[in-house]
Amino acid sequence: MRVLDISVPISPELPVWPGDPPVELVRIANIAEGANANVSRLACGVHVGTHVDAPVHFVEGAASIESLPLDRLIGRAYVVEFSEVDVIDDKAFDSADLPAEVHRLLIKTQNSAFWSESPNSFREDFIAIDARGAQWLTDRGVQTVGVDYLSVAPFGDSRPTHTILLQAGVVIIEGLNLAGVDPGWYSLYCLPLKLVGSDGAPARAVLLKEE
Amino acid sequence: MRVLDISVPISPELPVWPGDPPVELVRIANIAEGANANVSRLACGVHVGTHVDAPVHFVEGAASIESLPLDRLIGRAYVVEFSEVDVIDDKAFDSADLPAEVHRLLIKTQNSAFWSESPNSFREDFIAIDARGAQWLTDRGVQTVGVDYLSVAPFGDSRPTHTILLQAGVVIIEGLNLAGVDPGWYSLYCLPLKLVGSDGAPARAVLLKEE
Repeated sequence: MRVLDISVPISPELPVWPGDPPVELVRIANIAEGANANVSRLACGVHVGTHVDAPVHFVEGAASIESLPLDRLIGRAYVVEFSEVDVIDDKAFDSADLPAEVHRLLIKTQNSAFWSESPNSFREDFIAIDARGAQWLTDRGVQTVGVDYLSVAPFGDSRPTHTILLQAGVVIIEGLNLAGVDPGWYSLYCLPLKLVGSDGAPARAVLLKEE
Repeated sequence: MRVLDISVPISPELPVWPGDPPVELVRIANIAEGANANVSRLACGVHVGTHVDAPVHFVEGAASIESLPLDRLIGRAYVVEFSEVDVIDDKAFDSADLPAEVHRLLIKTQNSAFWSESPNSFREDFIAIDARGAQWLTDRGVQTVGVDYLSVAPFGDSRPTHTILLQAGVVIIEGLNLAGVDPGWYSLYCLPLKLVGSDGAPARAVLLKEE
């Protein structure tokens, strides 16, 4: 079984959503200075890097991250690649020829290349799913959608896509790095931190492929 | 396939190792106050709740968390229960009658009941593995060991156990909640955040059991 790590590394250099807190990762105890152990402290927004959105991120009073059913984030998943579209709408999905039985869908685009830019700054021009695309997903019965930049929705128009998906109970994974992942079927394991009452949580996500 | 969540919930009420930073989880943007979305910020020590230790936690210059091989944290794992010992030493392991082929071992003790105490304060009297127990594990070829409180080593004597295990390349998972998990074989998926250069990382861990 081959393990493909589709998570982005979390460090102060990682771009974050404009207005979100930057990543702080600081050593607060050092063996070299006489401490018993090396110990670090992390501070970040909960939508940092590879992460999962909870319904309450956009829907007031809705479920928070620790109550998401983990089977939405564990199991057979299909990776589709969109290489020639500026926005992922209903027509893009119609043309993608997805297998009928897709419940967990990960979408690979040119965004994945953004993660390897150096220096790495936030990009507003990422490819995302518009409201018609979100409606297509819910109509089709997709239960989990993963994207390869920091929002499932186009920059400057985040609310329609998020609310359509979250109100329909679709679990949203953002910030995946799918560079080097070929389209096709995999086993997905995306495990967000169990943050009580939170609107989202950073996650580690892997794809397993039988060899 | 049944999913057993063996992670502890992360909140400001969660006990942390003495001297480690408390958990902060604060809403910093609110739809109710005119924000586009609800957004929270997390701050915590990297050894909070269910987490994985990196070798550099106790061994100066050793590997940090993002370089751990994920196959140590993914795959067949055996849960053993110790209900009658005060410390887990070589004799305790000798008596446990472990299957020969155990590479990933999770240890259930009375510690797991600590997580449901209310209010929940740090307990110094948790059951842990002493230096002879650690040596037994490395001699036996165990590659991953998971425990159900905040340290693999007894309180006040953390260095011997940690260094024996970490120098031998054994991956340490701490802070599991194994209440309600029967001893036996499972598929383990323990995914720590990919924190660059860190001495540890919080993780979400699940056991899968075929039904």
